[in-house]
Amino acid sequence: MRAEIVAVGTELLLGQIANTNARWMSERLAAIGVDVLHHRVVGDNLERIVGTLQDASSRADVVLVCGGLGPTQDDLTRDAIAAMLGVVLVHHDEIEAMLRERFAGFSSAPMPESNLRQAQVPEGVRWIMPERGTAPGLIVELGEGRRLYAVPGVPREMVEMMEGTILPELTTLAGGGTIASRVLRLTGVGESAVAELLGDLFDASENPTVAFLASAGEVKVRLTAKASSPEAAGRLLAPLVDEVRGRLGDAVFSDRDESLEETVLSLLRAKELTIACAESLTGGSVSARLSAPAGASRSFRGAAVVYVEEVKRDVLGVRQETLDGPGVVSEACAREMAAGARRLFGADVAISLTGAAGPEPHGGQPPGTVWIALDAGGFTHARGFRIRGERERVIRWAQQASLDLVRRYLEGRPLPVSDTTI
Amino acid sequence: MRAEIVAVGTELLLGQIANTNARWMSERLAAIGVDVLHHRVVGDNLERIVGTLQDASSRADVVLVCGGLGPTQDDLTRDAIAAMLGVVLVHHDEIEAMLRERFAGFSSAPMPESNLRQAQVPEGVRWIMPERGTAPGLIVELGEGRRLYAVPGVPREMVEMMEGTILPELTTLAGGGTIASRVLRLTGVGESAVAELLGDLFDASENPTVAFLASAGEVKVRLTAKASSPEAAGRLLAPLVDEVRGRLGDAVFSDRDESLEETVLSLLRAKELTIACAESLTGGSVSARLSAPAGASRSFRGAAVVYVEEVKRDVLGVRQETLDGPGVVSEACAREMAAGARRLFGADVAISLTGAAGPEPHGGQPPGTVWIALDAGGFTHARGFRIRGERERVIRWAQQASLDLVRRYLEGRPLPVSDTTI
Repeated sequence: MRAEIVAVGTELLLGQIANTNARWMSERLAAIGVDVLHHRVVGDNLERIVGTLQDASSRADVVLVCGGLGPTQDDLTRDAIAAMLGVVLVHHDEIEAMLRERFAGFSSAPMPESNLRQAQVPEGVRWIMPERGTAPGLIVELGEGRRLYAVPGVPREMVEMMEGTILPELTTLAGGGTIASRVLRLTGVGESAVAELLGDLFDASENPTVAFLASAGEVKVRLTAKASSPEAAGRLLAPLVDEVRGRLGDAVFSDRDESLEETVLSLLRAKELTIACAESLTGGSVSARLSAPAGASRSFRGAAVVYVEEVKRDVLGVRQETLDGPGVVSEACAREMAAGARRLFGADVAISLTGAAGPEPHGGQPPGTVWIALDAGGFTHARGFRIRGERERVIRWAQQASLDLVRRYLEGRPLPVSDTTI
Repeated sequence: MRAEIVAVGTELLLGQIANTNARWMSERLAAIGVDVLHHRVVGDNLERIVGTLQDASSRADVVLVCGGLGPTQDDLTRDAIAAMLGVVLVHHDEIEAMLRERFAGFSSAPMPESNLRQAQVPEGVRWIMPERGTAPGLIVELGEGRRLYAVPGVPREMVEMMEGTILPELTTLAGGGTIASRVLRLTGVGESAVAELLGDLFDASENPTVAFLASAGEVKVRLTAKASSPEAAGRLLAPLVDEVRGRLGDAVFSDRDESLEETVLSLLRAKELTIACAESLTGGSVSARLSAPAGASRSFRGAAVVYVEEVKRDVLGVRQETLDGPGVVSEACAREMAAGARRLFGADVAISLTGAAGPEPHGGQPPGTVWIALDAGGFTHARGFRIRGERERVIRWAQQASLDLVRRYLEGRPLPVSDTTI
C-alpha cells in the first residue's frame, strides 16, 4: 500500500514550525508496512490545496491530509475536498451539538457563529468525531479502494484520530490482521552503540520490524509485528523483546514506552516510597519532570533549588567547610545536598545534582562537570562525570543521569560509577 | 519570486527524522521576501526524484533541493539532475583534489574509489565548493531566469551554502536590497484578540509585512521590512513597531524576540535585584525556566518546590490555620508561600504558585484553579484565576502568569486582578 502525506498550513511554508506531524505519521505508517512515497506541504490557498490533493490522489492508495480543519477562514481543507469531489458542504446537527457542548465547557461567552464552519462536511463524506478538540476528521472514499483521510494539525488531535481510527483501518486494508508494537526506551547508551548491538536484528528484520529513534539523552527501539490476531502478534513480539532486553541489559528503563520520570514514579508507587530533590545546575527541571505526570503527588514531596552557595548551606545544611574545601561542585556537596533534601522534605529517597552547566566554569570546575548523589537513609551513592556540549545538553543529560540513578536504585540494579564522559 | 523546497531522503519518509532543513530554509527565504509555495519530500529513488524535480521546476522560479549529494549509491540527486537536463555527469579534478585532501584530514586509510562519485557534476552545471564536509553544492540554470540549487542534507553543510552563496544570490535576484525583522512577543492576550487588534495592519501589510504565531501561552508578532539598506529597512519598521506596541499595550513583554524568562532576568539585572520562587502546582518548572539562560545565577537564588501540605508549612512557614482554613489553594497560602520563599532564599522578590493542576481537584478546588502571589518586601500582590484545559496547559499558563506578574511589577505596569479565566 502506497501513501502520501499532505500537510496544509502557511506557517509551515514560513518556517514557523517544522513538519513533525509528517514524521510521526510516517514512523507509524512504516511500522504497519505502508510505504510513504511523498510528503508535501502546501499553504492556506484553496487552488493549491486542491491541486496538491488531486496530484497526491492520482498516485497513492492512501492520502493523509493534516491541518486546515480549524474554525477560521484560513482553514480550507474541507472546502478543498468538496471542490476536488465536486460536491457541496453539508451542515451536520450532530457535529454542531458537539461544538456547542465543547465550547460551553471552556468559555462562558457565546460560541462565535464562525465556529459552525467545523460542522460542515463535504456531501457523502464520513467523519471522525473528536474526543478532544473540536475539529472532526474526514474519511473520503476515492473509488477503486483508494481513500483520503483528513485530520487536524494539532498534534495530539492528529494522534488521537490516527491511533483510534486510521491506523487500525489501514492495517485491515493492508491485508487484514493486526499490528502490535512494543517500544523499549533506554538511557546511558548512545544510538551508535545500540545500532551495533542490534545491527543483525535490524538488518534481518521483516516481521517483526526493528527501528531506532534517538532523542536528547534517550534511545527508543520500536518492535512491530503484523499477524492475524493480537495474540499472534504478541507471540511474534515476545521473544524479540526478550532478545533485545538481553542484549541491551539494564540500560532499558521501560518496555512499554513510558518516560523515565513515569518509570521512576511507578517504581516509587509500587514500593510506597516518596522522593525529594536538591537541584543546583538543573534549576528545578528534574522536579518539574517528576511532578508533570498526573498523580505525581502520591510520591513526589518537593525540592529545593539552591542556585547560590549560601543557600546550599542555609536551606539544605551543606557545611561551610565543604563549600570552602572541595567546593559546590564536589562529591561532598552532592552528598550533603541529598541528605539535606531528604531531611527537609521528609522523603524516603532524595536525589541531588550540582555542577557547572556552562558556558562559564562554576565552583572551580569546567563546564559539564556534574556530581549527583542519592540518599535513601541507610544507603547512599554518589557519581561524578563530565557531560560534553552546550548548556542545554548538559542540563538535559544531568536530568537523565539523576533520574536513571533513582530507577537503577529502586530496581536493585548496579549503579553507575564516576569518571565517565557522556 | 516563488520557490519550492525538495528534500531527498528515505529516512524522512520512514519518520526517522523530521524535515527541519525545510523549516530553516523557509524561515530564511521568507525573510528575504521569497514566497515558498511547496515543500516536498521524496525518497532515494531516481525516477521519483526526477519526477519531483521536473514538477517543482515547472512551477517555481527557484527550486532548492536538499540531500542526496553524499558518496553512496543511495545518493541520487546528481544523477537525477543530469537526467532531468538530459546531460552526462562530468568528473572534475578540482573536486577530486578537495575530496582527497579532506579524506586524508580525518582518516589514514586510502579513500574508497566510490567517494569519487562526489567529484561528478552534471555537464554545464556550476558547483559550490564546501568549506566543511565533502559534498559540493550545485547551481543549475533552468532558463528564463529560473534556477535550481542542490545542497547537502547535513544541516550545518546546508546552512553554510545557504548563508555563503544562495541567500545572497537570491537577495540580488529578488531585486537587491536587504531585509530586517522585528519580533514582538506578548502574553496574557489570546491570538484571536491580537488578530482583531491588528487585523487592518495584517490585511494592509505589504512592506513591512505583519505575521502572527501563537504558541503555548504566548503570541509572536513578526514585522519584516524590505529596503535598499539596513537603515532604510529600520526606518520602515520603527513606526510600525510603535503602532503595534501602542495597540497591544503592556501585554508586549519584548520587542526583540526575547523569552519571558530572559525578559524577567534582564529587568532583574538592570535593577540589581534577586528572585526566588515557591512552587506547588508547577513543580519546579518556573524555576527551571528562570535558570535555563546562561548567566541566570546573577539574579536567580533558588526555589522551594512544596508539593505536599505539611512541606508548605515546614519549609516555607505557611501557617497551620491557613492550611486548615482557606486551604492550600488560596490567596492566604500563596501570600505566605511567597513571603516564606523571599525570607528563606534571601531574595529581593519572590513569586509563588499554588493550585490544582488536574485532573483531580486539589485543596477542595476544581482543576485549573490557581493563586499566584508576589512578595517584594514592602509590596505584595496576589491574583486568583482559572485556567481552562488539561494538566499540561494549566501548568504552562500558570508559569506564564507568574513570570508576567514579575515582569509587570519590575516595569511598573498595572498588575492583573483576580477572577479571570484564561
